[in-house]
Amino acid sequence: MKEEISPFGNLYVKGTFRLSFFAFQQLSGALQKVWNAVDIHGGTTLLSTGLTGDDARMARAAVAARARLLEPNHPAVVLARGLYGAKDMHAAEAVRHRLSLDEMLKVISGVRSAVGEEIFITVGVPGGFTEKQPIILEDEDFYNIARAGADGLYTHKTTLEDLEEWVTKAHKSGLLVDAYIAHPDDKHLLGIPARTPEEVGEAAQAIEQ
Amino acid sequence: MKEEISPFGNLYVKGTFRLSFFAFQQLSGALQKVWNAVDIHGGTTLLSTGLTGDDARMARAAVAARARLLEPNHPAVVLARGLYGAKDMHAAEAVRHRLSLDEMLKVISGVRSAVGEEIFITVGVPGGFTEKQPIILEDEDFYNIARAGADGLYTHKTTLEDLEEWVTKAHKSGLLVDAYIAHPDDKHLLGIPARTPEEVGEAAQAIEQ
Repeated sequence: MKEEISPFGNLYVKGTFRLSFFAFQQLSGALQKVWNAVDIHGGTTLLSTGLTGDDARMARAAVAARARLLEPNHPAVVLARGLYGAKDMHAAEAVRHRLSLDEMLKVISGVRSAVGEEIFITVGVPGGFTEKQPIILEDEDFYNIARAGADGLYTHKTTLEDLEEWVTKAHKSGLLVDAYIAHPDDKHLLGIPARTPEEVGEAAQAIEQ
Repeated sequence: MKEEISPFGNLYVKGTFRLSFFAFQQLSGALQKVWNAVDIHGGTTLLSTGLTGDDARMARAAVAARARLLEPNHPAVVLARGLYGAKDMHAAEAVRHRLSLDEMLKVISGVRSAVGEEIFITVGVPGGFTEKQPIILEDEDFYNIARAGADGLYTHKTTLEDLEEWVTKAHKSGLLVDAYIAHPDDKHLLGIPARTPEEVGEAAQAIEQ
């Protein structure tokens, strides 16, 4: 295992691959957007999602209301497009994997075009969560997600192995990753399982590793 | 010129073609939805558009708030998708013709699926207004619009000849048409021009003819 340390002290990437300068540059720039948002908002910030994350009209409204972090995600887009009979988010979670990546690429590109370069966009895409059916994304898919205008991906992977594979591919294309820890009894398992505060701490440390 | 009179007294269609029974049935059913909305709302009704007309989530919210008439339209979808650099409706009007009809068919189908059959859906599609570039829709396009789930089309045609052609094709596929009268100095010409109340009256009579 080689370890790459970026010129930015708080950005480090572990793995068996070297990151290109492009990827480093993208990751550093993306992280800087997040820190800028935290600075501007006085120490914490908000991420705006749902309708405000995937509809370019509402994304502009969110940014006008000073949001600087947006999150388009595939179950919400399933609902927005009235697909597969889903009428609420619970139903959408069960069919979200059926949305095409192309549809999400168009959403990302449209929102980026509407809000400009300074806004941090993290996206949920089919295959990014633990889906009902396996959706495998290749390096080229991650590259296309980055090219469409995303700064990062958020993922609801539920094992550390899946998460590591995801982070490796994402970082190669210069995409940050935000991962989750979730209670194993939740209706939808949306993160590395942890039941108690102690388990949450352990999961967080494992994710950092 | 033959004239067809439907079993519904207030539904009549003039033209050089016979309407199929399918088209009559569709037109009558669509008109009934409008009358039902007017009845339920005590003599007048509202049509809900913009975000509430084209986003299936918001369309459901509008219907939950008792709206019974929805209107997805192509300039609003251009804005929703962040396309062609348009950041407001004025800019969207100048590029609305570039949206594909397929995108509007998906919107219609998604909204119909979300709100059910009782809601009246009238749609604006590329070619339905007086566009910057000529967009010619064929009978098959109108048929596909009807199949996607529309009850009607609203049109901003600006000459009576264009309007007559549009109405003829629309009715063949069982689609109602709502047409507009507009002041000729408006920023966007969105109807048969009329400057004074008298001219409005004349335009209205001409449209009825």
